[in-house]
Amino acid sequence: MQDTIKELISYKMFKELRRYLSFKAPEDIATALNGLSHEDMILAYRLLPKEMASEVFVNLDSDFQEKLINLFSDKELKEVVNELFDDEAVEIIEEMPSDVVERILNQVDKEQRTSINKLLQYPDDSAGSMMTTEYMDFTEDMTVADALAHIREVGEDREDIYKGYVISKDKKLSGIVDAKELVLANGDTPIVNVMTDSTVTIRTLDDQEEVGKLFGKYNETSLPVVDKDNHLVGIITLDDAIDVIKEEAEEDFEIMAAVTPNEETYMKTPVYKHAWHRIIWLLILMISSTISGAIINHFQAAFAANLILVAFIPMIMDTGGNCGSQAATLIIRGLALDEIKTKDILKVIWKELRVSFVIGIILAICNGIRIYIQYSDIKLSIIVGATLIITAMMAKLLGGILPIIAKKLKLDPAIMASPLITTIVDSASVWVFFSIAVAIMNQ
Amino acid sequence: MQDTIKELISYKMFKELRRYLSFKAPEDIATALNGLSHEDMILAYRLLPKEMASEVFVNLDSDFQEKLINLFSDKELKEVVNELFDDEAVEIIEEMPSDVVERILNQVDKEQRTSINKLLQYPDDSAGSMMTTEYMDFTEDMTVADALAHIREVGEDREDIYKGYVISKDKKLSGIVDAKELVLANGDTPIVNVMTDSTVTIRTLDDQEEVGKLFGKYNETSLPVVDKDNHLVGIITLDDAIDVIKEEAEEDFEIMAAVTPNEETYMKTPVYKHAWHRIIWLLILMISSTISGAIINHFQAAFAANLILVAFIPMIMDTGGNCGSQAATLIIRGLALDEIKTKDILKVIWKELRVSFVIGIILAICNGIRIYIQYSDIKLSIIVGATLIITAMMAKLLGGILPIIAKKLKLDPAIMASPLITTIVDSASVWVFFSIAVAIMNQ
Repeated sequence: MQDTIKELISYKMFKELRRYLSFKAPEDIATALNGLSHEDMILAYRLLPKEMASEVFVNLDSDFQEKLINLFSDKELKEVVNELFDDEAVEIIEEMPSDVVERILNQVDKEQRTSINKLLQYPDDSAGSMMTTEYMDFTEDMTVADALAHIREVGEDREDIYKGYVISKDKKLSGIVDAKELVLANGDTPIVNVMTDSTVTIRTLDDQEEVGKLFGKYNETSLPVVDKDNHLVGIITLDDAIDVIKEEAEEDFEIMAAVTPNEETYMKTPVYKHAWHRIIWLLILMISSTISGAIINHFQAAFAANLILVAFIPMIMDTGGNCGSQAATLIIRGLALDEIKTKDILKVIWKELRVSFVIGIILAICNGIRIYIQYSDIKLSIIVGATLIITAMMAKLLGGILPIIAKKLKLDPAIMASPLITTIVDSASVWVFFSIAVAIMNQ
Repeated sequence: MQDTIKELISYKMFKELRRYLSFKAPEDIATALNGLSHEDMILAYRLLPKEMASEVFVNLDSDFQEKLINLFSDKELKEVVNELFDDEAVEIIEEMPSDVVERILNQVDKEQRTSINKLLQYPDDSAGSMMTTEYMDFTEDMTVADALAHIREVGEDREDIYKGYVISKDKKLSGIVDAKELVLANGDTPIVNVMTDSTVTIRTLDDQEEVGKLFGKYNETSLPVVDKDNHLVGIITLDDAIDVIKEEAEEDFEIMAAVTPNEETYMKTPVYKHAWHRIIWLLILMISSTISGAIINHFQAAFAANLILVAFIPMIMDTGGNCGSQAATLIIRGLALDEIKTKDILKVIWKELRVSFVIGIILAICNGIRIYIQYSDIKLSIIVGATLIITAMMAKLLGGILPIIAKKLKLDPAIMASPLITTIVDSASVWVFFSIAVAIMNQ
């Protein structure tokens, strides 16, 4: 699609391009535009049918959004902004420099400006910053027919018209009505007869990770957000929750690979920024491997007497690191799914002890035999075998315990996974290896 | 909640338990029951109000489902099974032993049995196995009023009533109608006037990962599944897609940590199975670290002459491994989001070359200075510094290229990430280190 757009632009076939774009989904157009040069992107954007423009705009990268806003006349900006839902506007505003924010806020009507300003006050990554105030609102005295009429009247501007929120006189959430119930029910049924109590609500200051979990669990198109007095202040819709679920998984991913999480795409992140996001972690982890080095130095006399020991350092370090990150990953997953609770720490220890003992024994036997065949040195077999058992058990225990401790301390468990565990286990396993070697060699 | 249930059972307060459960969401009840003993689970399940029972059943762990089915009378089983949607029934059946499957299929009516059998024929992890045939179907000659009447009549049994699929006489998908449009439109408008063409369709044999991506991109409650002749055969609903998005992220997670992906929970997986899922990878990776060991052995003469070299092995191996997995993770993420395409391989190489050069230089300078201060040995500073630059560049190039090659070969890019890259880079970096050392020491 991107190539087609480029080609049509290069032949100046603008009429054909306009027609071509009108058949495509806004999300796909945005993906294609995000890969174009500034000039081509602006050209193609200007050709979009009016009713598609704002939908494409929402899906563009933020630097392109900024470019476009700077080119827009006030009238054009107003047209785009008025088509946005509150939460979309907030998401865009959060990425813009202050002069652009001012221009945007000047173009929205007073009512929308008030609600945008309110949403902007919630901390980043909180439920409040994700929500929209444009929900389908019903009052307790409505009938089903009233509710349907209300949907027809204002539904066009509401983000989720498939769920209506019934609000009591004191502004509290009194129940939720599925559009399904409205369609299936008789017109003069009172709305309070078809609504259900809402057992699942979100607090404005809940973390977005929590929100993602709730949507993953309950099969709902939107969920209500309430303040501390149980007043309904907004709703969060499923599409925003999906973005969060994806974002959180990616964040954990990056933390585990020792990269500072970054919302920008790989290709758009400049080289110096890539380097910066990675170098800090490499330097921190280097300190820890310097400790392993110091431990090795400490045992210089031991391996000077038996140089073959050095050849086993990589295997012992790698096995320790891999064992630790296996356990850590499984525990982090379990914690994220709420399957493992922090109070389960003793159960985890007991399980990892048994698993690692089985694994340690198998690794020790396989390697012990291989080493005996290769070097005919039973002492060496015993040294490496014993080290592998101890290393596997220590690595798996640490891998199991550290993420739980992190969670208890309200840190992200993912930062405890590899490579942090890897490097801790490295030092410890090298120390175990040489200590055993010294003990056995001196027999 | 789990503790409350246990307590009420221990005091035999069954009436109170029943009332307590009736206020809770089925998903939460299932989560609580999944943590109980068999006896308590069965007791609590039997107390559930009839209309909640099947919804709780769907959310139970499969071993509990099997236990319950074996206890059910035919009548009870029929009640539960008839409440299930096709895709829910298929998901349960796929986990059951054959005698239980037979009992379930005997209890469903003939029509449902036919459609379940059809769904069971699609390969696991394909779009076909995720879809349901219970969609809202309209014909082209309907009016809006006809469509609304049809929803009222059959809507109770359809999984997504917020989108209707308009089917032509030759069974092809001709368009899609939002329930929103139906509610907002005039009753005698022909349905073809309010429907939109569907540009996004899924093929029955598409991989579920593809399905997850589509739902992540387009903001839809369901998407149509068509066969190769473009006949509509079913729909996939958003709730199933969310499960897939979560599952795929977890799978990549586990593969990167060298654990065989496992759908069972950590606590429910027995020790021998945990050990099995981890030992295979550990043994494979051990072969590769044995190669690093052999390389070290090969350079025995070099480090025998200068034992301090040994102390740098951990730092060089760890840095290489970490650099590689940083790059690999970012590329895997980019590939998963379709931001990086396989044809971008040259761009990735060029970017990683520059990033890794910057990182290599910084690491070399930091370490070179530290080593000079510690050992006053300029040759050692140069050896370690040069090794770090080459290792960082090599690791980041491999980390960038291997996932793209994997994708090109239609393998899962995640298996190319750490720890496979780590161990490849290990051998190479140890080799570079000692080669440089030999060259410089002999000067």
